[in-house]
Amino acid sequence: MAATEAALRTHGYADLTMSDIATEYGKSTAAIHYHYETKEDLFVAYLEYLLEQFRDEIQSIDASDPVARLQGVLDNLLAPTEEHHALLIAILEMWSQGPYNERFGSQFQEHDKYAQQMLETTIQAGIDDGVFNPVDVTTVAHSLMTIVDGARVRAVVLDDVDELCLARETADSYLEAVLVAPGDGS
Amino acid sequence: MAATEAALRTHGYADLTMSDIATEYGKSTAAIHYHYETKEDLFVAYLEYLLEQFRDEIQSIDASDPVARLQGVLDNLLAPTEEHHALLIAILEMWSQGPYNERFGSQFQEHDKYAQQMLETTIQAGIDDGVFNPVDVTTVAHSLMTIVDGARVRAVVLDDVDELCLARETADSYLEAVLVAPGDGS
Repeated sequence: MAATEAALRTHGYADLTMSDIATEYGKSTAAIHYHYETKEDLFVAYLEYLLEQFRDEIQSIDASDPVARLQGVLDNLLAPTEEHHALLIAILEMWSQGPYNERFGSQFQEHDKYAQQMLETTIQAGIDDGVFNPVDVTTVAHSLMTIVDGARVRAVVLDDVDELCLARETADSYLEAVLVAPGDGS
Repeated sequence: MAATEAALRTHGYADLTMSDIATEYGKSTAAIHYHYETKEDLFVAYLEYLLEQFRDEIQSIDASDPVARLQGVLDNLLAPTEEHHALLIAILEMWSQGPYNERFGSQFQEHDKYAQQMLETTIQAGIDDGVFNPVDVTTVAHSLMTIVDGARVRAVVLDDVDELCLARETADSYLEAVLVAPGDGS
């Protein structure tokens, strides 16, 4: 999977061949075909691996303080590294194949569902602790994912990794207004 | 351009041939090649046409009331029609080519810049009229475009046109909190 990721960073998605991945892997294409029959099988396995990684990273965030945890999840979702950027380009190519490839589509849906659930449970914990306003957690988590996905696509399409930092500010001011600011006089 | 749009709706971007467009156009591929030497030339012209259309639509919105105008611009940016959806799929494919195609990339940047300017001038007009809080218009317009782009990519990737309506609610509650709600006691 590390070889697939390295090859995606270098070649992007559309032009990537099994041979490129074999080169990164330091083995023959036959060795890869032994595990993954088609390029599609390999990419679906890669998307599963990305979700596994994301799960591990989110679970390593300290769960005790809902405010810090929410910041940690957003830090992860909007990490503005240059290294990340080459991968974002390849992922946007895969996203654009979602409507034509049901297996990719369901991977993306699963990834989104997991991220949204993590945001929901964190916000709910903050409400239960009395540090956040009693909002509709589904709506707020969904809004955050819209901002996150907007930032990711803009970072690629406008070729500006800074979009991720700007979106982090948007998310923070949205959360400040919705979760923390006092309600309208009630 | 209408033929290009119809062909994009039916075939998507990646698999589209000059011949598909000629079929929609009701003429020979030679007739298209007469105007556009390559497929890339044709798509760049199509992106210019989309921006022209967007400009016309925005300019037809009544400019007298900043609140109504801001709603009108957002209505346009987040129009949730099924017809729109097939085109969004093709546009996401083109977006994903932005990093590999400089001419596409600059079209997308120009489109984004225009939309953001329209949002900025509308918000500024509302501040001047005293109906909006004195915010940083660049930041707020940028946040709105992040929400808009997030909704567009989610509508395609998650195959759910409802994402555009949900994002409209996100934009409205963000604007309500930032532009309209009373400041924090100051």
